[in-house]
Amino acid sequence: MALIGAELTRVEPGIVEISLRYRSDLAQQHGYLHAGIVTTIADSACGYAAYSLMPPSSEVLSVEFKVNLLRPAKGETFSAIAEVIKAGKTLTVVRADVFAVDREAQREIVATMLGTMICLSR
Amino acid sequence: MALIGAELTRVEPGIVEISLRYRSDLAQQHGYLHAGIVTTIADSACGYAAYSLMPPSSEVLSVEFKVNLLRPAKGETFSAIAEVIKAGKTLTVVRADVFAVDREAQREIVATMLGTMICLSR
Amino acid sequence: MALIGAELTRVEPGIVEISLRYRSDLAQQHGYLHAGIVTTIADSACGYAAYSLMPPSSEVLSVEFKVNLLRPAKGETFSAIAEVIKAGKTLTVVRADVFAVDREAQREIVATMLGTMICLSR
Amino acid sequence: MALIGAELTRVEPGIVEISLRYRSDLAQQHGYLHAGIVTTIADSACGYAAYSLMPPSSEVLSVEFKVNLLRPAKGETFSAIAEVIKAGKTLTVVRADVFAVDREAQREIVATMLGTMICLSR
Repeated sequence: MALIGAELTRVEPGIVEISLRYRSDLAQQHGYLHAGIVTTIADSACGYAAYSLMPPSSEVLSVEFKVNLLRPAKGETFSAIAEVIKAGKTLTVVRADVFAVDREAQREIVATMLGTMICLSR
Repeated sequence: MALIGAELTRVEPGIVEISLRYRSDLAQQHGYLHAGIVTTIADSACGYAAYSLMPPSSEVLSVEFKVNLLRPAKGETFSAIAEVIKAGKTLTVVRADVFAVDREAQREIVATMLGTMICLSR
Repeated sequence: MALIGAELTRVEPGIVEISLRYRSDLAQQHGYLHAGIVTTIADSACGYAAYSLMPPSSEVLSVEFKVNLLRPAKGETFSAIAEVIKAGKTLTVVRADVFAVDREAQREIVATMLGTMICLSR
Repeated sequence: MALIGAELTRVEPGIVEISLRYRSDLAQQHGYLHAGIVTTIADSACGYAAYSLMPPSSEVLSVEFKVNLLRPAKGETFSAIAEVIKAGKTLTVVRADVFAVDREAQREIVATMLGTMICLSR
C-alpha cells in the first residue's frame, strides 16, 4: 500500500475508501492503471472495511474475491470504496467499487469486486 | 421461473425485481429455500436487468456469476433485486441482492451475486 | 437432489461425482438443462467433495461459488465432478466441472465452478 | 510483468506458465508474496493462455476473474500455470493455479483462479 502510494482516505464502521494518485510506473502498456493495482486497492479496501467491524485483537485475511474489470482505468486519481454487506464472527462479505477520477473531478466506475474476508484471532 | 412460481415484480431500465413465495417443495432439508433456487432467482433477475438495456431483438445469456450465500434463506417471500453496474454492447455486468421477507415485512439479505451477461443478436 | 433425480455416482476422499438424467421439466425454453440445475448439481458435488474430507460429526455449507456457463447444457445425462483443491479445518476450496453426455457416451464440458465450503461442527 | 521480474517460462496452445523469483519488495508485512502480485501473475498467465489460441491480430483483455488465496505465498520462486477450459470466438474461460516452490524444489499450491478473457480484433 505504501509502496504504490495508496492512502486510507475514509474509515467508518464497515465502509472504507482507499485513494491512489496515478503514477506512470503503476501503468500497463497503454498508460492505464494496471489491473493488478486496481485489484490490489479494491482488495485492500475490502480487507480494511471488514477489519473495521472486527474485535480489537483480530487479523483479517482475504479468502477469495472476484473482480470485474469494467473499463480502462484512466484517470488522475483512483478511489476504491468498500462496504461490508454481511459481517460475521468468522467470515465477512464485502463489496468494493473502484472509480477513476479525472482533472474535473468527474468519476467513472472502472471495476467492481465481491469478496470474502476471514477474521483470525491473534 | 413459472415452475417455481417466481414473478417479475419490478422492471425499470437496468433494475429488475423478481419475487417468489415460499413453497415447501423449494426447500432443502432444514426448511430453508434451497441455495439452487436462491441462485436461480438472482441469476434470472440479473439476466432481465441486463436485457432491459439491450436492443429489441437481442437475446441475453449468463456468461458467469459468483454468489455469496450469507444466511439461511428463511422467509415467507423472497425478493431478488438486480441492478446493472455497467452496460456494454457485448457484455453487461450486474449485481443482485436476494432478501428474505417475513410476515411482518421485515427483510434481511440472504445472498448477493455479481455476474456477467452477454448480448446475442438474433 | 432427490427431487431432480440426481445421484451420487462416485465418492472418494476429496472427489465426488453427481449424475443426473435429462428430464424435460428440468429444461429451460430451448430444451437445454436449466442453468439453475447445472449450478445446483455442481454446488452439491462441491459440498459432498468437501464433506468427504471433514471429521464425522461436521456439517458442510456453501460460503460462495462462481460458475462459468460454457455451452448450452444439451445431453442425455449430466455429470458434475468435484475435486477438493485445498482442505482446511474451517474452509475448503473445491472445483467442479459439469459435463453433458450424449447417447454415444461422448461428453462435453458445459460449466465449471470454483467454490468455498465451510465446515460447521454440530 | 517486466517490472516485477516475471517471465513466460512455458507457452503451448492453451497452456502458459509464468515464473517469478521472490523479491522482498514484492512481499507484504510478513515476508510472503503480496496477494496483489499472486493475482497479477495468475491473471497474466490466464491472459496469455487465452491469447495463445486467438487469431494473430487479436488483443486479449480480462473481463473478470475470481481468485482463492489458499495459503501464505512463501517460497523462493512462484509459478502460475494457466490452462484454457473453453476457447470461444469472443470469450475464453481459463483456470490458473499458483504454486510456491522452495529451495528443495518442493511445490505447494497457494492460489487458484477462474477467469473470463475477451478477444478484441485490432
